[in-house]
Amino acid sequence: MIVEMRTGAAREEIDAVVEKAKSLDLGVQLNLGTDKVVVALLGSNTGQIPTDMFAVLPGVESVTRIMKPYKLASREFSPGNTVVDCGGVKIGGERIVVMAGPCAVENETQLMQAAAAVKKAGASVLRGGAFKPRTSPFSFQGLQKKGLELLARARQQFNMPVVTEVVNPQEVNLVASFADMLQIGSRNMQNFALLTDAGRSRRPVVLKRGFSCTITEWLTAADYLLAEGSNQVVLCERGIRTFEDSVRFSLDISAVPVIKKNSHLPIIVDPSHAAGHYSLVPAIARAAVAAGADGLLIEVHPNPKEALVDGLQSLSLSDFARLMEELRTIARSVGRSL
Amino acid sequence: MIVEMRTGAAREEIDAVVEKAKSLDLGVQLNLGTDKVVVALLGSNTGQIPTDMFAVLPGVESVTRIMKPYKLASREFSPGNTVVDCGGVKIGGERIVVMAGPCAVENETQLMQAAAAVKKAGASVLRGGAFKPRTSPFSFQGLQKKGLELLARARQQFNMPVVTEVVNPQEVNLVASFADMLQIGSRNMQNFALLTDAGRSRRPVVLKRGFSCTITEWLTAADYLLAEGSNQVVLCERGIRTFEDSVRFSLDISAVPVIKKNSHLPIIVDPSHAAGHYSLVPAIARAAVAAGADGLLIEVHPNPKEALVDGLQSLSLSDFARLMEELRTIARSVGRSL
Amino acid sequence: MIVEMRTGAAREEIDAVVEKAKSLDLGVQLNLGTDKVVVALLGSNTGQIPTDMFAVLPGVESVTRIMKPYKLASREFSPGNTVVDCGGVKIGGERIVVMAGPCAVENETQLMQAAAAVKKAGASVLRGGAFKPRTSPFSFQGLQKKGLELLARARQQFNMPVVTEVVNPQEVNLVASFADMLQIGSRNMQNFALLTDAGRSRRPVVLKRGFSCTITEWLTAADYLLAEGSNQVVLCERGIRTFEDSVRFSLDISAVPVIKKNSHLPIIVDPSHAAGHYSLVPAIARAAVAAGADGLLIEVHPNPKEALVDGLQSLSLSDFARLMEELRTIARSVGRSL
Amino acid sequence: MIVEMRTGAAREEIDAVVEKAKSLDLGVQLNLGTDKVVVALLGSNTGQIPTDMFAVLPGVESVTRIMKPYKLASREFSPGNTVVDCGGVKIGGERIVVMAGPCAVENETQLMQAAAAVKKAGASVLRGGAFKPRTSPFSFQGLQKKGLELLARARQQFNMPVVTEVVNPQEVNLVASFADMLQIGSRNMQNFALLTDAGRSRRPVVLKRGFSCTITEWLTAADYLLAEGSNQVVLCERGIRTFEDSVRFSLDISAVPVIKKNSHLPIIVDPSHAAGHYSLVPAIARAAVAAGADGLLIEVHPNPKEALVDGLQSLSLSDFARLMEELRTIARSVGRSL
Repeated sequence: MIVEMRTGAAREEIDAVVEKAKSLDLGVQLNLGTDKVVVALLGSNTGQIPTDMFAVLPGVESVTRIMKPYKLASREFSPGNTVVDCGGVKIGGERIVVMAGPCAVENETQLMQAAAAVKKAGASVLRGGAFKPRTSPFSFQGLQKKGLELLARARQQFNMPVVTEVVNPQEVNLVASFADMLQIGSRNMQNFALLTDAGRSRRPVVLKRGFSCTITEWLTAADYLLAEGSNQVVLCERGIRTFEDSVRFSLDISAVPVIKKNSHLPIIVDPSHAAGHYSLVPAIARAAVAAGADGLLIEVHPNPKEALVDGLQSLSLSDFARLMEELRTIARSVGRSL
Repeated sequence: MIVEMRTGAAREEIDAVVEKAKSLDLGVQLNLGTDKVVVALLGSNTGQIPTDMFAVLPGVESVTRIMKPYKLASREFSPGNTVVDCGGVKIGGERIVVMAGPCAVENETQLMQAAAAVKKAGASVLRGGAFKPRTSPFSFQGLQKKGLELLARARQQFNMPVVTEVVNPQEVNLVASFADMLQIGSRNMQNFALLTDAGRSRRPVVLKRGFSCTITEWLTAADYLLAEGSNQVVLCERGIRTFEDSVRFSLDISAVPVIKKNSHLPIIVDPSHAAGHYSLVPAIARAAVAAGADGLLIEVHPNPKEALVDGLQSLSLSDFARLMEELRTIARSVGRSL
Repeated sequence: MIVEMRTGAAREEIDAVVEKAKSLDLGVQLNLGTDKVVVALLGSNTGQIPTDMFAVLPGVESVTRIMKPYKLASREFSPGNTVVDCGGVKIGGERIVVMAGPCAVENETQLMQAAAAVKKAGASVLRGGAFKPRTSPFSFQGLQKKGLELLARARQQFNMPVVTEVVNPQEVNLVASFADMLQIGSRNMQNFALLTDAGRSRRPVVLKRGFSCTITEWLTAADYLLAEGSNQVVLCERGIRTFEDSVRFSLDISAVPVIKKNSHLPIIVDPSHAAGHYSLVPAIARAAVAAGADGLLIEVHPNPKEALVDGLQSLSLSDFARLMEELRTIARSVGRSL
Repeated sequence: MIVEMRTGAAREEIDAVVEKAKSLDLGVQLNLGTDKVVVALLGSNTGQIPTDMFAVLPGVESVTRIMKPYKLASREFSPGNTVVDCGGVKIGGERIVVMAGPCAVENETQLMQAAAAVKKAGASVLRGGAFKPRTSPFSFQGLQKKGLELLARARQQFNMPVVTEVVNPQEVNLVASFADMLQIGSRNMQNFALLTDAGRSRRPVVLKRGFSCTITEWLTAADYLLAEGSNQVVLCERGIRTFEDSVRFSLDISAVPVIKKNSHLPIIVDPSHAAGHYSLVPAIARAAVAAGADGLLIEVHPNPKEALVDGLQSLSLSDFARLMEELRTIARSVGRSL
């Protein structure tokens, strides 16, 4: 941590910074510049000390953190690539994993049709929402427990692991008893109560990026999951909020190489929520694979026109099959399979 | 809702839109333009129908919603100004209400000193955090139940109602049994499970704006609280995430008149979290009062240098007293008291 | 254009809207809804009429534009794909065009080394800045005319067309006399005086996206160039400003399919300015090709450690050669060559 | 400048950083931390040295600038408050200066009516656009030279100085020969050719903030004006681009205290462009005065319904007069006059 003193800061002000640092067991080195005094604070846990503790002292101009605030999710903590096991499917290895299915589970026919088709086209995990976090209380909230039961039936019938969202700490155990992997949605990325309970569930977790959270905040949120003792966490980039209005969210393609550089966790991409329109999904999905993503999470619906939720961003079964063909070629061109 | 067909859309495509609308009991009017066909869908509940249901149909170029998606929070639903009663203090009336106190309750001495000083300076509600949502699992998470007990003691001693944050649906009843008003934090604005339980608690609620949520999303989230039957909701603007890096968040001052125009709910402003630095708090607080805010939520600490959380943005007791003097003059200049 | 009247708008207020529309030769259709009156305004030029002209009338709640404000850049105006000729190199055809070279021309050796290497690795256009728009007046401003002369020499020696930036209307003719293609930088995307003069130069133009401009504004800015009579405009996505701080700008990968859908102009991607760091450039470049970009604009420097400008985002000659190999495979996997 | 080395950086890598620093005449201090080596670079001009020069070196993890990149605009450079003289009106002193008038000069009657009314209500500078930077080439571009002549006539008739925008370096002298103060618009804040020529004109300049530029970039752009030798620069906050869609731009009220802290230049606020709607202008204008702004720039039109440009955000003459009354009371409550 670097503490920059104001021009002309008094000797006692500098001393107070040094003392505070020592009281926290930090090492201290003073840099007496021509214009300014700069105090470097050294220690292995400065990433976890709030900068405010120094910024608030008299005579301090600014405090800059050099250590990242996340720890367990960092590549420095675990240099190799973590592989996550979702019901036997490995995420983070050579093979790119496609998770596909309807945004919301609506009924048995819809789910089974979708599951059969995505399996046939090459998807290896079935996705489907039972508990839906909706922006309006007057919108369809999901089939809830009945949705979970349908997902479990589809898993058995098609021999595919299942991932589904959990939105309430009180429902973590219920969801974990049906699903192979839990999903934490974008609006819950900083719902720390939910993260803690999901981390304790012993299920692997897909942690979607908060649509306005930095990558640093995302990895720090992952620390909540990892702090419970498991390393089975998959990150999912799903678009960030920007000023651009031709898409629902702007997919942050740079997040893929940035995560690969700073973290050991696998990263997948959800092109559906970012695009908000089925016609844009294939280009974004191809880009994600080329950029190095470890997987994709794609919304597919047997009849998008009749979907209860997010029909516009869902691929039809035939569009999905066609996209899988394209992705297979691109995966090969970056030395992976799909 | 306005459905714009693509140039050259086929007759059957237009018919399909009309049919879908009729199946939803909507009125339909066709506009046959020179270049494009535009279909207007009419009905009192079009705000609650997802635009996707039409956007996904063949031949449709775009769908524009005209009715707002929120309902219970809208001024059309309730034309007068709602006044919220927090333990006898009226929020939304002539008097501007100042809620002040420490970010986190740390111990009895700190809380009692803060409470005595903010009361003396003219604050009418005591704030203080017992459950703290922290971005890192390694940061201080609040005194929790012990913090609630200290708040209850301060309330009794200083005869001031108390507002404190709740972060987990499982703790709503506990917090409601100690506090006069619940606070939903920015990161939980779209935690719909928490909103529903808080709405059921029968306590008034301060709903902070999600730092990346639009005003429309904010009012739609308020609908979750209002849908449980009470109208005792106060909105709190606390800064939004932008590219500007000289403050923690950019206070959206325009939110004050926009909320006044579109909603019947009172709006207060939190200058502390927006600024992130005590030296900027007074200017933002003055601006909020001048813009028409119904109250302020301000962090005050007896000794900011020793604060466990957010010391940099906390006012000292004397700075707070000075600010209250300034605000009193500005309140008078806009025809209100404080 | 759709004019939504306020609930309870008076008959005369509706009449005033109708009259204003007729005075502008627009067709009018009234929709008398249950709650609201909605007026649809029809005509082929409603995209160019300011919405304010109606929004300002009494009784009007909102005005929504349905026609896009851009015209000449739209795919509706010109359904086929435009191919731009840059000194014999076709941009927008089957072949993906790579433009590479140093951010700033620094001296003859540096430029010739870079040109030789990028040519050898397969780039077909040489880029290099002679006039540099720098955020601080105390930074290196480019070699200016001398830089143009060096670029002309490199073009001759390596038989490659040259693209370089122009920043001042007074220098358009000078730059056009040396360069095969003019570049308008991100900070000048809405410098309309410069756009007009560049459009008149009869040189093809690369129009970089303003780092905070929507795609609609970008295409409307392209209309300034196209209005001067030529269709030789290439769009360049180079990253937008967001809250994310691990990169300089967030590359908007969705811009590629959105532009392909809405415009006939070719689009290329600049991964260097977006990433701001050489280690992120390859992943973004691969993603751009997979998403369907028609070309890339990449900064390459024979010795990035000594670069006067933007060394951190420049690829070394060997890194660039390696990237070209990767891109060739990906281009093939999407049915194109490079 | 603080250079953080990667964990495990080699001795030669550290030496290379030190050597580079010495070659630039910077002082160097090494901090050998437990986990990382940190190198502090000291000198009075590190604000002007690109961080890239170090970030690009092998073994470097990150480079953090401590000195601000702007110099002449900083309060450290000039501790007192600069007062700008606009045709005899002092901006930056005790009195809050209101500049008002139509967005675009349309004809003599409109301008003279507006000028008479704003003068009578207490405005001290007349604003009006002659050269209009419009996002579409098909929109009204202003009366240009004829507009300047009308402004000069209004100045004489009402004895008010005049401020108007300049958009092209080639027109700086023309505009300076008619106007008392030049305005640089938001889209031109980083049009460095225009800034340089405006700085040379010897007229005072209002520099509007780029709608997506940080305060640091804004002050660095002001350095372009100040580098030409005059200190007569007024900063104007006019709203920044965010995700919020209920206003055209989000007024950054915090910019007022941040500029006061970091710069000696006066700051005024334009509530009209931020709000985009006349009904929101008064609340924002009041907030600006309460926050400590030195002036306001407000659009006023004798007949907003007929305005050729931006009618929706223009105040009518009577609304403006009423607002001036409100502002007078608020100015007094913060110890100033208007």
